[in-house]
Amino acid sequence: MTKTVLSSASKEVIIGFDQPFVMIGERINPTGRKLLAEEMKNGDYSRVEKDALAQIEAGAQMLDVNAGIPLADEPKILAEAIQLVQSLTDAPLSIDSSIIEALEAGLSVYKGKALVNSTTAEEEVMERVLPLVKKYGAAVVAISNDETGISEDPDERYEIAKLIVERAADHGIKKEDVIVDPLVMPIGAINSAGKDVFHLVRRLRTELKVNTTCGASNVGFGLPNRHAINNSFLPMVAQAGMTSAILNPLHEGLAPAIKAADVLNGVDPNCASWIKKYRGPPAEGGSEGRGGRRRGRRRA
Amino acid sequence: MTKTVLSSASKEVIIGFDQPFVMIGERINPTGRKLLAEEMKNGDYSRVEKDALAQIEAGAQMLDVNAGIPLADEPKILAEAIQLVQSLTDAPLSIDSSIIEALEAGLSVYKGKALVNSTTAEEEVMERVLPLVKKYGAAVVAISNDETGISEDPDERYEIAKLIVERAADHGIKKEDVIVDPLVMPIGAINSAGKDVFHLVRRLRTELKVNTTCGASNVGFGLPNRHAINNSFLPMVAQAGMTSAILNPLHEGLAPAIKAADVLNGVDPNCASWIKKYRGPPAEGGSEGRGGRRRGRRRA
Repeated sequence: MTKTVLSSASKEVIIGFDQPFVMIGERINPTGRKLLAEEMKNGDYSRVEKDALAQIEAGAQMLDVNAGIPLADEPKILAEAIQLVQSLTDAPLSIDSSIIEALEAGLSVYKGKALVNSTTAEEEVMERVLPLVKKYGAAVVAISNDETGISEDPDERYEIAKLIVERAADHGIKKEDVIVDPLVMPIGAINSAGKDVFHLVRRLRTELKVNTTCGASNVGFGLPNRHAINNSFLPMVAQAGMTSAILNPLHEGLAPAIKAADVLNGVDPNCASWIKKYRGPPAEGGSEGRGGRRRGRRRA
Repeated sequence: MTKTVLSSASKEVIIGFDQPFVMIGERINPTGRKLLAEEMKNGDYSRVEKDALAQIEAGAQMLDVNAGIPLADEPKILAEAIQLVQSLTDAPLSIDSSIIEALEAGLSVYKGKALVNSTTAEEEVMERVLPLVKKYGAAVVAISNDETGISEDPDERYEIAKLIVERAADHGIKKEDVIVDPLVMPIGAINSAGKDVFHLVRRLRTELKVNTTCGASNVGFGLPNRHAINNSFLPMVAQAGMTSAILNPLHEGLAPAIKAADVLNGVDPNCASWIKKYRGPPAEGGSEGRGGRRRGRRRA
């Protein structure tokens, strides 16, 4: 039962096979958000503050923090954003950058055990990111592509993930501190993208025995009603064995879909979290319960 | 690639491993619907008519027809309801009764190849239902319980399903004409009910190689916000390999959840059905596509 323990100064979150699915809020990210980028660049973190609180309120157990703004001082901004977010919430954070100096700046101010997002299997990236992960006692997202790009063959992506896990071990990082991102391709472009990732997640869980995550908003890219695609994708990939995802918990229906998947995967003991959240007037009886109950009755 | 072909006079529906998930509308059933029961008993099928059309409109590819009314002439009512529904829609029907005379009355007026709902592994039931299925060239739902009731062990339920498939073969009924109902227990009562059925469906598909169905409304029984449980359950069980379900396609969000699962399972080629149904203004770009695209861009 693989468990990845992440923490803030005062709270632990466990990503694991027998744990509720961990939603990592993706909103604190200026990529594609012009206004947020401009504000962050000018040291205005009011929107970061709002995004942090709203995502926690919507059910995110962790938050991803990214400060990738062209021509800005990313290390400084990322460190400031992390300190701010840690002052607002006790959720552990994912420190998200492709710039090594920014990752280090973020890690150096972070209180607790962070998730570093991310390394790939590219030689140069691994050899810069993994020592940092080790130095700060963090965990890391391992994205299953290498110098040649992203393979369309999920079994090749499996081998690439395995390579990162092995390399991490060489750096003294335990397997449970590597969370593999199997890479979810847009289903509108690659029809087998869903099946591929379900297959790959199952292998990663049963064979490599690692936790998994993904950028979940990608799968419906380019399709109409894409949120409905996402709201089915997350329960499906959780059923295949995925244990966390970087996503927007504010999207309508997404958090309930994932919480329901926890119930159905048996990781919400006695449905206690579900009942606590949704308890209201008693559930209706009558015709709606008929489908299955009928079978029971008939044979009573 | 197992395929169960059902038909009306003018239309075929295929339940199969590489086919879209088949929604069998459950609404035409007087159990727990006092008004409908009263009307059907009095030969008033206006509500049956409305329910039939509304379910087809909502996306049901087949309809279940049940006329189980205490102290009524079930064979006559079932036959009348079937004739009416067949005059309204070309969707193939599931003929649903626990009374053998009613099944026969329904089958004798049915145009096409029907689905008989259902037999169990109870000796007496099998030996009455299966000859009828063979005589009318129908397919049959096989519910995985026997005289001893419903086993909580999914692997025992597997063996019971296998026994029905073998008995059907003895009667000259091909395996592809037996659709197994693995029995979905209420998750509020049995915490492992979800995991059990995912495991069982996967075995039924990969080992026994049969199509599967279930009374889907049962899983959330007794829980608050039970429709949200269902809306995650169907994509999850479809991902595990289930190919059809008896359900209420009018429940909010359920049909889109299943259609999205078709897209993600790769059984909606080029997402053509999805795009046709939901095409409207172009999908939004901007921040919502960021989660995954970022990864692609970073490594371009």
